[in-house]
Amino acid sequence: MSKLNLSMATDLYQLTMVYGYYKSGIAHRKAVFDLFFRRLPWNNGYAIAAGLEQAIEYLNELRYTKEDRDYLRSLGLFPDDFLDYLGRLRFTGDVDAVPEGTPIFPNEPIMRITAPIAEAQLIETSLTSIINHQTLIATKAARVVSAAEDTEVMEFGLRRAQGLFAGLYGSRAAYIGGCRATSNVLAGQLYGIPVKGTQAHAWIMSFPDELTAFRAYAEAYPDACLLLVDTYDTIRSGLPNAITVAKELEAKGRKFVGIRIDSGDLAYLSKVARKMLDEAGLEHAIIVGSGDLDENIIRDLRVQGAKIDSWGVGTKLITGDDNPSLGGVYKLVAIEENGKMIPKIKVSDNAEKTTNPGIKDVVRFYSRETGKALADLIILADEELPPHGPLTIYDPVDTWKRKTLRNYEMERLLVPIFRNGEQVYQCPSVHEVQAYAAGQLERFWPEYKRLINPEKYIVDLSDKLWHLKHDMIRELRASYMDNNHH
Amino acid sequence: MSKLNLSMATDLYQLTMVYGYYKSGIAHRKAVFDLFFRRLPWNNGYAIAAGLEQAIEYLNELRYTKEDRDYLRSLGLFPDDFLDYLGRLRFTGDVDAVPEGTPIFPNEPIMRITAPIAEAQLIETSLTSIINHQTLIATKAARVVSAAEDTEVMEFGLRRAQGLFAGLYGSRAAYIGGCRATSNVLAGQLYGIPVKGTQAHAWIMSFPDELTAFRAYAEAYPDACLLLVDTYDTIRSGLPNAITVAKELEAKGRKFVGIRIDSGDLAYLSKVARKMLDEAGLEHAIIVGSGDLDENIIRDLRVQGAKIDSWGVGTKLITGDDNPSLGGVYKLVAIEENGKMIPKIKVSDNAEKTTNPGIKDVVRFYSRETGKALADLIILADEELPPHGPLTIYDPVDTWKRKTLRNYEMERLLVPIFRNGEQVYQCPSVHEVQAYAAGQLERFWPEYKRLINPEKYIVDLSDKLWHLKHDMIRELRASYMDNNHH
Repeated sequence: MSKLNLSMATDLYQLTMVYGYYKSGIAHRKAVFDLFFRRLPWNNGYAIAAGLEQAIEYLNELRYTKEDRDYLRSLGLFPDDFLDYLGRLRFTGDVDAVPEGTPIFPNEPIMRITAPIAEAQLIETSLTSIINHQTLIATKAARVVSAAEDTEVMEFGLRRAQGLFAGLYGSRAAYIGGCRATSNVLAGQLYGIPVKGTQAHAWIMSFPDELTAFRAYAEAYPDACLLLVDTYDTIRSGLPNAITVAKELEAKGRKFVGIRIDSGDLAYLSKVARKMLDEAGLEHAIIVGSGDLDENIIRDLRVQGAKIDSWGVGTKLITGDDNPSLGGVYKLVAIEENGKMIPKIKVSDNAEKTTNPGIKDVVRFYSRETGKALADLIILADEELPPHGPLTIYDPVDTWKRKTLRNYEMERLLVPIFRNGEQVYQCPSVHEVQAYAAGQLERFWPEYKRLINPEKYIVDLSDKLWHLKHDMIRELRASYMDNNHH
Repeated sequence: MSKLNLSMATDLYQLTMVYGYYKSGIAHRKAVFDLFFRRLPWNNGYAIAAGLEQAIEYLNELRYTKEDRDYLRSLGLFPDDFLDYLGRLRFTGDVDAVPEGTPIFPNEPIMRITAPIAEAQLIETSLTSIINHQTLIATKAARVVSAAEDTEVMEFGLRRAQGLFAGLYGSRAAYIGGCRATSNVLAGQLYGIPVKGTQAHAWIMSFPDELTAFRAYAEAYPDACLLLVDTYDTIRSGLPNAITVAKELEAKGRKFVGIRIDSGDLAYLSKVARKMLDEAGLEHAIIVGSGDLDENIIRDLRVQGAKIDSWGVGTKLITGDDNPSLGGVYKLVAIEENGKMIPKIKVSDNAEKTTNPGIKDVVRFYSRETGKALADLIILADEELPPHGPLTIYDPVDTWKRKTLRNYEMERLLVPIFRNGEQVYQCPSVHEVQAYAAGQLERFWPEYKRLINPEKYIVDLSDKLWHLKHDMIRELRASYMDNNHH
């Protein structure tokens, strides 16, 4: 476990291709790849970029040790001179990326890699896996947090995560998406995320009765006493016992924290609990709800007046539930030929899968009147745009859908992360990223943030990019027609 | 990355409870916990147990280092004497578990932990996470492999996995479930799983044209030349170019391996490809299909006569698709009181969520005539059963559903893994586990293995266990009624 080299966490075809490039004498040719996704999960209106810090760590540590090369030699696919080359290989390229916490949209480059094609190819699988995962979970968290409005969301998912590391990085991503705490101690230790948790049913069951179990907990944690009340019967047993212990604590001058309900009808039970607690003079006691929650259930419970102050959300947050992958891809968009960068395109019968060629950036326009985001434009990186408008943009598919932007501020989303293999970007703390994400989301109108059927945010292509793309499609199609005639 | 201590990958409440046990003077009390799941994913008829090897590694490495304790101290929840105790804590208990690769069913204990309650409690989160994840993916793989029948399934999921480690352990689990290879180089290095892969669209696009790209690949891999034919146009460009290169290779006495199709209608394209390859004298060339596949798509493509010899399955296999968590739980079933082990039960309004109390085992009955599995019975571990029948078993809910088993062989599913903290079980290789899983599945009638609407395999409770459970439920219900009258 402790000696794993994640450089080997790649697809074999990356290595066979790199050997092919090496053998063809083109391993050093500079190539540009974009990492992006095509479809938003859960029909959400946006995604929240996450995972960059781990992607940076991975790039900094990229190397093939002697053990790795010995294993690769054993496959019988690679000659020794190539394995020596691989042993010397480090990441020497440039990376530009959208900072973590930024709202992003389909087809926008989240990372842009400019490097010798051998290096750029090798890192595809790991970068995609890291960014896919954390962006997915940060986005899910943002949905859950949005449903909880002013109440707190805690991430409780580790046991249902896809292994301990998915739990760890998922916890990090969930915090970026707005969760205020995690149950995951390792995530607390590594990232400083606030950790929370009190007791489980096993605690209650390991004492002769519930009241004894509650008293023992209050004894251990007189100032952090939050009691799980649903082990036997929430209303007839858990709540009366919790109130008894709360009064005993408060008689000693301690402040009772509250209760947690983990099963049953949370709307009904929380209202009864609130009433019983208030009648006992425990208005300050909080009610935590947990048990197979997600954004839809939380919203419905709130609509029904559930008196829950804090939500513990596990399985459906940490896995992404019915949409457990973002489906991000990593595509070649330009390659050096005779010292010049030549744009590349992957054409598909499915127009949405045809890639955007060339070295690109993403520009976000904000209204100078409202401060709110107006639209994004994917541009060629060297394009200049009028600093405050007017600028007419149009839909890349339905080109008659046009909009003229005026009086705007604009921001380029990709920032430099690596230059010539050196990290030039200082990663902010997860606390800073969380605050940044929340601030960025504030800049979008609520219509784009509805849980169901949000308004589609405009992401257009610049005129120059649109023409480049369509010229390339035409040329390519003509060229196989041509081939076919031979 | 390299210094992570996974002992910290736990929920905070495990640590607060352990401190509570410690403070209440009961940390050393022996407790028994069962790990099991309640519902089969994708309405499959069975699950395939996986993850035990990693659970064993975790238990062997359980310890809280000085850094860990310093972090825990910083939380302000734990006094120094407890942190010292935690520093000395190791796993000293017994573990019994179902071997990896065994078909398992809801409510059957997959692992049974017998240990001082402090230890047993601490390990809940990690064990559950590890077993949940790998069992889920092994089960998904078994479904995909079953749909592919005699054709090969390869796991290609790393880039869409929930991070690199979920990809690694998911790859291991997929192999246990019957995949014959993986694209994941790290999984190949660590577990000896066969690795496969050739080239991606980026390879093709980094050359001036497809034919040049194919020739360069054939040059690098004259004996392992499998070409991706869908970059530009499968029928008009990819296949003719691949056949040209194949003929050039074969003219030099090399054997062309085949082609891969990653998009478009795989049924139609593979039939056209087969015909074109055969007409070119390349009957031996294989056709690999990939691109957002799962068991349902593979089955449908096969029904439509797709000529695919090997399937590369990614996202939906490595994540579990719409059911990305097994939902396994870990429940207290017995605890020591005055030197005796007392059964414990967690009652729920939802009868299916009420746990089975006591120290249990699972017995699987096989017909001595057909060799096929007849039923499973969850029993109390010290029960003796007639070695070859007859034995009448009944449904734990609809108790009128009875069945008399005769002329059977029986097998206890739980085997000793740890005794007093010492590992007493030698983990088989993943190859052995894969073969074992396939052999075990052979012992179940096909009706239980249908992809859709399989026959429900019988898992009953022994008469003794059923009565223990129902007596305990009655007593508990009576006791809160009682409480309520005070």
